[in-house]
Amino acid sequence: MFEVAELGHTVSKADYHKKTPILRTELLTVQQQLRQHNYSVIILISGVDGGGKGEVIKLLNEWLDPRYMRTNAYDYPSDEEQERPVFWRFWRTMPAKGTMGIYVGSWYSTPIAQRVYGKTKNAELKVQLKKINELEQELADDNTLIIKCWLHLAKDQQKKRLKQLEKNPDTAWQVTERDKKHLKMYDKFVGVAEEVLTETSSVQNPWLIVEGSDIRYSSLTVGQHILDKIKAHISTCEQKEHPPIMVPDSKIIHGNQPSLLSSLDLSVSLDKDSYKEQLNHYQGKLNKLTRQAHEKKISSVLVFEGWDAGGKGGAIRRLTHAMDARNYQVIPIAAPTEEERLQHYLWRFWRHMPRAGHVSIYDRSWYGRVLVERAENFASEEEWTRAYPEIRNFEESLTEHGIALLKFWLHIDPDEQLSRFKAREKISYKQHKITEEDYRNREKWDEYSLAVNDMVARTSTQSALWTLVEANDKRYARIKVLKAYCAKLEEMLDA
Amino acid sequence: MFEVAELGHTVSKADYHKKTPILRTELLTVQQQLRQHNYSVIILISGVDGGGKGEVIKLLNEWLDPRYMRTNAYDYPSDEEQERPVFWRFWRTMPAKGTMGIYVGSWYSTPIAQRVYGKTKNAELKVQLKKINELEQELADDNTLIIKCWLHLAKDQQKKRLKQLEKNPDTAWQVTERDKKHLKMYDKFVGVAEEVLTETSSVQNPWLIVEGSDIRYSSLTVGQHILDKIKAHISTCEQKEHPPIMVPDSKIIHGNQPSLLSSLDLSVSLDKDSYKEQLNHYQGKLNKLTRQAHEKKISSVLVFEGWDAGGKGGAIRRLTHAMDARNYQVIPIAAPTEEERLQHYLWRFWRHMPRAGHVSIYDRSWYGRVLVERAENFASEEEWTRAYPEIRNFEESLTEHGIALLKFWLHIDPDEQLSRFKAREKISYKQHKITEEDYRNREKWDEYSLAVNDMVARTSTQSALWTLVEANDKRYARIKVLKAYCAKLEEMLDA
Repeated sequence: MFEVAELGHTVSKADYHKKTPILRTELLTVQQQLRQHNYSVIILISGVDGGGKGEVIKLLNEWLDPRYMRTNAYDYPSDEEQERPVFWRFWRTMPAKGTMGIYVGSWYSTPIAQRVYGKTKNAELKVQLKKINELEQELADDNTLIIKCWLHLAKDQQKKRLKQLEKNPDTAWQVTERDKKHLKMYDKFVGVAEEVLTETSSVQNPWLIVEGSDIRYSSLTVGQHILDKIKAHISTCEQKEHPPIMVPDSKIIHGNQPSLLSSLDLSVSLDKDSYKEQLNHYQGKLNKLTRQAHEKKISSVLVFEGWDAGGKGGAIRRLTHAMDARNYQVIPIAAPTEEERLQHYLWRFWRHMPRAGHVSIYDRSWYGRVLVERAENFASEEEWTRAYPEIRNFEESLTEHGIALLKFWLHIDPDEQLSRFKAREKISYKQHKITEEDYRNREKWDEYSLAVNDMVARTSTQSALWTLVEANDKRYARIKVLKAYCAKLEEMLDA
Repeated sequence: MFEVAELGHTVSKADYHKKTPILRTELLTVQQQLRQHNYSVIILISGVDGGGKGEVIKLLNEWLDPRYMRTNAYDYPSDEEQERPVFWRFWRTMPAKGTMGIYVGSWYSTPIAQRVYGKTKNAELKVQLKKINELEQELADDNTLIIKCWLHLAKDQQKKRLKQLEKNPDTAWQVTERDKKHLKMYDKFVGVAEEVLTETSSVQNPWLIVEGSDIRYSSLTVGQHILDKIKAHISTCEQKEHPPIMVPDSKIIHGNQPSLLSSLDLSVSLDKDSYKEQLNHYQGKLNKLTRQAHEKKISSVLVFEGWDAGGKGGAIRRLTHAMDARNYQVIPIAAPTEEERLQHYLWRFWRHMPRAGHVSIYDRSWYGRVLVERAENFASEEEWTRAYPEIRNFEESLTEHGIALLKFWLHIDPDEQLSRFKAREKISYKQHKITEEDYRNREKWDEYSLAVNDMVARTSTQSALWTLVEANDKRYARIKVLKAYCAKLEEMLDA
C-alpha cells in the first residue's frame, strides 16, 4: 500500500513559494469559518522515522493561527497519566469545538511500537485497533473531523535521510541510536504500519499516505489535504443532518432486566436495630477494604443514579463515613460549564477519573444523556441512541484499566417520592433541594421509567452490571449499597 | 502558645448529639448562602500527628453538602506537580467562587517538615512563610476566606493516643514507624509549629488552635469556628467595600524606565538583507539553545504584550519557527471562560505553566489586569493597584523555580498602528483581526500609555525585567526578540 508514496514526488522551490501563500490564506480563512461551528478538528501526523513529521508540524504551526489550534505531543506518559485508562491523556487535551488540535504521537504510537518490539501479539494489536476505531467513531459521531496523515519513506530513502542528517553538524543531533535501531527494523515497522492503516481506514476517517522524502511536497500535500477535508466537512455538516446510526446490540445482555426494574420488591425494609448493626458491620468492613484498595492502588468509580429524592446523598454519606476523606471525591453532576459544553459530552466525566488508589463518586453521571437528556429532549434521538455503545466502551476502558466500577440505581415509587418532597420542604437546610421543577418532573414518570429500563438493559455488561436498589426503605437501600461495594472490593482484592 | 489546647477540653456524648444537628443545619444553610457570593472559602486542617485531623475532616465531609465543597489532600507531589513552581498544585485545585475547599496537607506541610527534619535553616523557613503570607494575602484580597485550624495534642496525650490506636486491632494500622519517630521529635515539631503559626497569624487570617484529644470537642469547635467565620465574612463583604490597600513599593526599581518608553527610538530599522542574515543566524542559534534547554529541563515562559497590531504574532512565529513544535505552546489570552471567571484572575495563567523543559508563550497575559482592565475600568482601582505586587510575587515564583521568564512590550506609534490596520483590512485572512473596537481603542491611547508606563515601572524586577521592543520596524523588532531570548537561554544554560 505504500508504493504510491515511493515515486519520488517533489515540488520545486519556485512552485512551493507560489503555492504556500495561497494555501496559507485559505487555511486561515477556513480556520475562521470553523470557529463558527460546533465541532473540532483533530489532525494526526504519524509516519516513519525521518519522514519529516517534525518539519510538517512546524510548518502547520506557522501557517495556522495559533489562537485556534494547539499541538499536543504525547511522549512518555506522566505518572498522573499512567494511573488512568490509556485514552485519558488524549481526552484531557481534546480540542474545544471550533478549534483544531494537532496530535504528535497519538493513540497509534504505543500500539505500533509495542507490536514492532514484539511486546504484543497480533491478536492484542487487533483489540487495540478496535478500540481506536470505536474512539474515532465516537468522536466522528459528535461531528469531530479526524484527519490522519502518514508520512512514508522507502527503506533506502530513510537510510539516505539519516545519513544526510548525520553529516550536517546542525542536524546530526536529530539522529539517535534509536533511529539507527529502527532503520534495521524498517521492514517489520512498515509491515505493522500497513496492518494498522488498513484496519483503521474508513470512509469517514481515512488515512492519507504521503511521500516524505521532499519536505516541500509533503507539507504542501498535507496542508492541502487538511484544507480540503475541513472545507468538505463544513459543507457536509451544513447541508445535511447526520443519518441515524444503528446501535450494534451485540454487547447487550438480553434477559429479564427491563422487567426486573418494575418487578423490584419495594416493600423490603430493615428495622432500626438490624440496620444499626449491619451499618456498623459493613462500614467497618468497608473501611478496611478501601484501605487495602488504596495500598494496592486499586481505584474505584461509583455511579449513583436514581429518582429525585431516591436517597443518593444519604447512601453516599454512609459510604464515605467509612472512607478516608483524603482518598475520595464526590463529583456532583449539574449543568455542564462553558468549557465542558465545548467538548464531547463524555469529556467532563473523563476529567474526574481518579488517580491510582483513589475513589470518584459520581452523584449523577454520564447516564444523564440517556435519562434526563432523553426524557426532556435535550439530546436528539440519534444522540442518546448512540450513547449506549459509547457508554459501554467508556466503562470498558475503566474496567480494563482495573478500576472497580459500580453503578447504583436507587428505585422508589411515586408515592414515596411525594412524601419525601413534602418532608424536605419542612427541613430548612433541605428546602433548597425542592423546586417547582421537581414536581413537574413527576408528570413524566412514565417517560423516565422507559428511559431507565432501556438504560439498565443496554448498559449492563459483564464487567459493568447495574445494582438496582430497592430504596423505598432508606435503611435497606443504604445497606445494599454498602454490601455491594464491599463485595466488589473483595472480589478485586482477591483477584 | 499551645497551653490553651492542653486543658483537657471534652464534650459529653449527650451534649454532642444535641449540638451537632443544629450545627449541621447551620452549616448547610451558610453553604447555600455562600453559593450566592463571589468568593470561595478555603479551610486548612493541620496539626500534630494523632491530633485527629482525619476524623475532623471526615466529619466535615459528612456535615457539609458535597456538591459545593471538595477535600484536597496534598500528598507526595506527582511528577507533573514537581515540574512546576511549588504553589502550582494548590492553584490547580483552588475552589471556585461560591464553593469551599478543605485542604489536608496544605502549603504549610512541606515548610514545617523540612524545618523539623533539619533540611532547611530558619532563614529559609522565614522566606517560605513570607511567601505563604503573600499568597494568603492575595487570596484574601480577592475576598477568599481562609480558615486555618491547628489540632494540638500535649506530648503525653500524643503518646497515649498512639498507644490507644496501636492496642485496637482496627486502628493499629494507623500508627506507622514514622509516627513513632515523630513522637520522639515532638518538642522540635511543636517548636517549629509555634514559629510558623506566629509568623502566619494575622487579623485577617488567624490560626485557631484546637485541643485534639477529644474528637467530639475538636470537631464541634472546628465546625462552629467555620460557621462563625463564614457568617462574619458574608456580613463583612456585604456591608462594606474593601478599603484600598497600599502597594508596598520596596521591590520597584526606580529609575528612568517610565520615560524610557516614551523615549524609545522608533526610527530604528533593519534593511532586508541584514534582517535575513540575522534572522537565519539567531534562529539557528535559538534552535540549538532551545534543544539544550529541553534536555536540561529548563522551562521558559515568554510574555508578549504590545499595542494592537504591534506585531506580536509575527514575532512569535519567528521564534517558534526555530523551535520544536512538540515542546512549546502558544497560549492566546482572550476573555476568560466561565470556569476561569469563578477563580482568582491569576488562576487561568497558572493553568498553562509549562512542564519541565517546555515553553509557554503567552500572547497577551496577566498584564491585561493593569492594561486593558485598568483602561476600560473592568477592574477597580483597588484591584489593579493590588495587581502589581501580585504579579511580582507570581513571577518571582516562576523565576525561583528556575523558569526562564521574558516579557516583551512591542511598541509602535499611533500612525504606524493606523497604517497597519488599513493594511490588514486589505488581506482577506487578516480582516477578522480588525474590528470597530480596535479603532475605538485608539482614542484611549493616552490612558493606555499611562498604564503601560506604570506597568513597566512597577513590574520590572531584577529577575523579571521588561524587554521594550521598538517595533515600528517589524524586522528590527523580530530580531530584537530573538536575540533577547537567545541571550536569556545562554545565561540560564551557563549558570
